[in-house]
Amino acid sequence: MTEQFVVGIDIGGTNTVIGLVDKYARVLDKTCLKTQHYQTVDAYVDELCACILNIIKNVGGEQIKGIGIGAPNGNFHTGAIEHAPNLRWKGLVPLAKLLEERLHLPVLLTNDANAAALGEMVYGAAVNVKDFIFITLGTGLGSGLVVDGKLVYGHDGFAGELGHVILFPDGRLCGCGNRGCLETYCSALGIMQTYFEFAQKHDIALPENKESLEAKYVYDRAIAGDLAALQAFEFTGELLGLALANSVKYTSPEVIFLFGGLSSAGDLLFAPMQKSFEKYLLPLHRGKIKLLKSALEEGKVAILGAASLIWQMK
Amino acid sequence: MTEQFVVGIDIGGTNTVIGLVDKYARVLDKTCLKTQHYQTVDAYVDELCACILNIIKNVGGEQIKGIGIGAPNGNFHTGAIEHAPNLRWKGLVPLAKLLEERLHLPVLLTNDANAAALGEMVYGAAVNVKDFIFITLGTGLGSGLVVDGKLVYGHDGFAGELGHVILFPDGRLCGCGNRGCLETYCSALGIMQTYFEFAQKHDIALPENKESLEAKYVYDRAIAGDLAALQAFEFTGELLGLALANSVKYTSPEVIFLFGGLSSAGDLLFAPMQKSFEKYLLPLHRGKIKLLKSALEEGKVAILGAASLIWQMK
Repeated sequence: MTEQFVVGIDIGGTNTVIGLVDKYARVLDKTCLKTQHYQTVDAYVDELCACILNIIKNVGGEQIKGIGIGAPNGNFHTGAIEHAPNLRWKGLVPLAKLLEERLHLPVLLTNDANAAALGEMVYGAAVNVKDFIFITLGTGLGSGLVVDGKLVYGHDGFAGELGHVILFPDGRLCGCGNRGCLETYCSALGIMQTYFEFAQKHDIALPENKESLEAKYVYDRAIAGDLAALQAFEFTGELLGLALANSVKYTSPEVIFLFGGLSSAGDLLFAPMQKSFEKYLLPLHRGKIKLLKSALEEGKVAILGAASLIWQMK
Repeated sequence: MTEQFVVGIDIGGTNTVIGLVDKYARVLDKTCLKTQHYQTVDAYVDELCACILNIIKNVGGEQIKGIGIGAPNGNFHTGAIEHAPNLRWKGLVPLAKLLEERLHLPVLLTNDANAAALGEMVYGAAVNVKDFIFITLGTGLGSGLVVDGKLVYGHDGFAGELGHVILFPDGRLCGCGNRGCLETYCSALGIMQTYFEFAQKHDIALPENKESLEAKYVYDRAIAGDLAALQAFEFTGELLGLALANSVKYTSPEVIFLFGGLSSAGDLLFAPMQKSFEKYLLPLHRGKIKLLKSALEEGKVAILGAASLIWQMK
């Protein structure tokens, strides 16, 4: 039987990880290259192809169903990376086309959060869930919407940008240029800023290197009983609960999955989030929609998600 | 050729309108009964069946493809009207099943706004639009989401409740029990209340019968140059523009259609709405997503929309 494997590629600002994936969510082989090392797209694509050929040489090209890629600002419709702020190649990078020309394999590409949502659907806790929302809580807040078993791409490939839903039009400045976007509050950077604000209010001293701290610091402080850190989790959870309750009014998902850094904070985040979520739902939805931590493994999700693009292919 | 016609039924709190519809959006025959006149569901269904049989007798049952129904709190998945606050029959009314048993024709049912969205897709300006949002601005605010050519029902049939997206958690009390829902501001009732508040602030006298006024009054006052009425449209348009920009971040529609009362206010509503919409979009969406008045005829939309349920049927 042919086509037993898929190549899953996770392109990040720093690293590109290439994995050989089977249908049972096993990553059989993995290699890595430095994304920012290559000044031109061509040089990057040359090296990427060399890595792919190397990783598939033991199984043979005829056993490979295709190549799935998760990338910042990846557009499923065009197969291009479009104006990604954290990559050095500007404008449109037609990556799927460039790889197809060189490798003669089907190539599909989407953004990171969409790929992760697909990973949850194919390999994770959403195998039997037709309608769900997948939220990644990282530096920012990413999301993928699944409706009736299909990822929502929208007319131009840029659906599912819940991190940029505006909560406070006069709120915190966001990277997108607007103010008060969800991700300026509910993300690693967001909760750090909230903690600094509460700490200042309570005259709690901050370490000198506060610019280099990570969200884990707020978590550790909360566990240690720091009032500002506890309040920061309370505030973040409440706001996220409201935002997620609002999202139910769009697509009425059965489950909302949370993934990444902040979602590991357990009850510190989930308790206030769950309470506010229930409060702000329509009465007919109360008690019926689950907020769950993703079942995917942190280190593998991007590759598995990217691979899912190909397994899903008709 | 058989199956040239569909029966479209619009169930409202006051009237039930039954129409015979062909594929060219022509309502060939129409009849009406008083929804609230019937104490029991059975008595209502008996009379409804009599009306349907009467309206199809000239073409013959074998020419009827099915019966489509738009109803308050209509659930496509279950075919039932579920806990509709403005109907006298409480709990679940399995209307599709009751009609199928009596008439032996396929019966599909959904809520009013979803039906209108389908009407726009089958008969209106969305014939070639695969991703759009349909907003009805009536007493409240209803909505239907269309993704990749299909209406979004969600896991339980209650997707597309944009009127209950919460803008201000401490805002105006909504019929759903929460506060600050979109429809408490952007609807006929919403703009009336906004007008009263602005009028009070500017010491503008209100007529004694202010409780019985309709939104048309605010429109007439704005045309006459009443400052409070002009500000009420400005405020409503700005808020609606923000809410619609946020909705783009969910499903990235090509067009958002607006329908009903307030959408007829022209530039008074559209100018501030369009401006705020563009402002709050992601930069990559600016100038690319259309806000349009629906192309459907006010008096026919509900019947045509309900009929579309059947034309869409596989």
